[in-house]
Amino acid sequence: MPTLNNIIEGFQNIQDSICNGLEQLDGQAKFEQDLWEHKGGGGGRTRLIQDGKVIEKGGVNFSAVKGNVPPFLLDTLKVDIEHSSDLTFDATGVSIVLHPQSPMCPIIHMNIRYFEMSNGIWWFGGGIDLTPHYVTPSLAKNFHVGLKTVCDQHHASYYPEFKKWADEYFFIKHRDETRGIGGIFFDRLMANDEFDKAQRWAFVQDVGNTFVDLYSHQIKATQSLPFGEEQTKWQQLRRGRYVEFNLVWDRGTKFGLQTGGRTESILMSLPKQAMWLYDYQTTPNSPEAKTLELLKKDIDWINL
Amino acid sequence: MPTLNNIIEGFQNIQDSICNGLEQLDGQAKFEQDLWEHKGGGGGRTRLIQDGKVIEKGGVNFSAVKGNVPPFLLDTLKVDIEHSSDLTFDATGVSIVLHPQSPMCPIIHMNIRYFEMSNGIWWFGGGIDLTPHYVTPSLAKNFHVGLKTVCDQHHASYYPEFKKWADEYFFIKHRDETRGIGGIFFDRLMANDEFDKAQRWAFVQDVGNTFVDLYSHQIKATQSLPFGEEQTKWQQLRRGRYVEFNLVWDRGTKFGLQTGGRTESILMSLPKQAMWLYDYQTTPNSPEAKTLELLKKDIDWINL
Repeated sequence: MPTLNNIIEGFQNIQDSICNGLEQLDGQAKFEQDLWEHKGGGGGRTRLIQDGKVIEKGGVNFSAVKGNVPPFLLDTLKVDIEHSSDLTFDATGVSIVLHPQSPMCPIIHMNIRYFEMSNGIWWFGGGIDLTPHYVTPSLAKNFHVGLKTVCDQHHASYYPEFKKWADEYFFIKHRDETRGIGGIFFDRLMANDEFDKAQRWAFVQDVGNTFVDLYSHQIKATQSLPFGEEQTKWQQLRRGRYVEFNLVWDRGTKFGLQTGGRTESILMSLPKQAMWLYDYQTTPNSPEAKTLELLKKDIDWINL
Repeated sequence: MPTLNNIIEGFQNIQDSICNGLEQLDGQAKFEQDLWEHKGGGGGRTRLIQDGKVIEKGGVNFSAVKGNVPPFLLDTLKVDIEHSSDLTFDATGVSIVLHPQSPMCPIIHMNIRYFEMSNGIWWFGGGIDLTPHYVTPSLAKNFHVGLKTVCDQHHASYYPEFKKWADEYFFIKHRDETRGIGGIFFDRLMANDEFDKAQRWAFVQDVGNTFVDLYSHQIKATQSLPFGEEQTKWQQLRRGRYVEFNLVWDRGTKFGLQTGGRTESILMSLPKQAMWLYDYQTTPNSPEAKTLELLKKDIDWINL
């Protein structure tokens, strides 16, 4: 069975391979690295790419930190606080957000993570979702087919279950809009009758290893599309929504900011620039209006 | 003693008078009004000003809504849920954020509000704070002297107490920075041995009625100052911090978004554009670095 050190090393390898793949895809910008240490133990490798030919601003972050299990988590886990005084955790993972230059190219996010406590409880979590500024059904289908292919290699229930979970998770409640076309989201993947730890870990690695191919397909299909001021303005407005989701609803961001995580690494998910206009309305039947109509839960992108 | 209707009418008058004053100050843009209704009862007058000579984007909102007291508030108030089934509330107030065109001019925020429940419990709350992109001690002093003057007319303890409260409230914890130079913040002002309801209401109205004078002084002192690309970039970055505070920490914004408030009215506090750069560092001894040094709690602006 994989040990904590195996998993940490595996995540580092995934970070390296994704950074290499993205540098090739961009063809111009290179990642810069910041190493940092966590006050409770461990640390991370924050890698930033900016002002590229394809990517305007993005981060591919690895971290492996340890600490005492915070009280609110004990509460969620129904662990008696009196018996928790020595309970520590290790958390490790890779987290990515990429904001492209062109409004015709989609924003992408991926997070894969592992958490274990000193009492032996452990789980994997993660997700990957795509946020096109303009939704194209054929490209949305390609993305979901790719995710389903990875999922199906591990269990037939994974894609339908994790696709639905992504629709629920990547949802901007105060706008009644999904963040984008969704993807997959999963959490608390533990060992059970059907899966052991090695199988869970294999799935998580496969998700990480499919990232570059999936995003490369999206970029190659969209990077040469023409655009002008109208599309750039729409991109800025959609980035405003991305900021709203991350700061108001994203559990990882909120958890990180409120528990003293490394702010600059957490907020690498934010775009270089974003815009808010009061009560902005799209023109009926415009590409922007058609995109809004597709920012809904429960769309079957594969059979649309 | 003032009734709910007296207070609602008073807040509407303050909104009218502030909008008139700001149109004169701007000299170009006019407010546009959206009337809206709240599902639980009541509604609001959202007023937007944009693309002015002085103000790029701002809102002066009045609302008076009613509904059932939400469970988390019952919990805070230590009201037994079994005895709360018929408990309703009325909430009314005026809320303002103005983002100026020039980076040399400060952002300003004010909120004054009244809350009462069907069990007879009521209170006033509010605050006003200034967020200069560049902090000038003499202008910060003028702002605080103005607030102290209003407070001192009501009680000698108000300014020191509410100034400290503002420093605590308008604080961006994950950045370890105050949002700006603070101001005053107060909440749960009820009747007690020293103040009756009429006196609390007189104070709240005085805060509202001093708004235009205080902000006009700031604008007149800064609107002709020259600026270039460097200052505009800094303004965009500081607006990013403003977005972070409002979406991550501001209780009113979070409460509104999570309880189904009117999103466009709540998010009028956001600037037209904002920027995030990874780990941006100011040049030593620059005006930007000097401003950062002054974004701290517990600065005695009046005697600096």
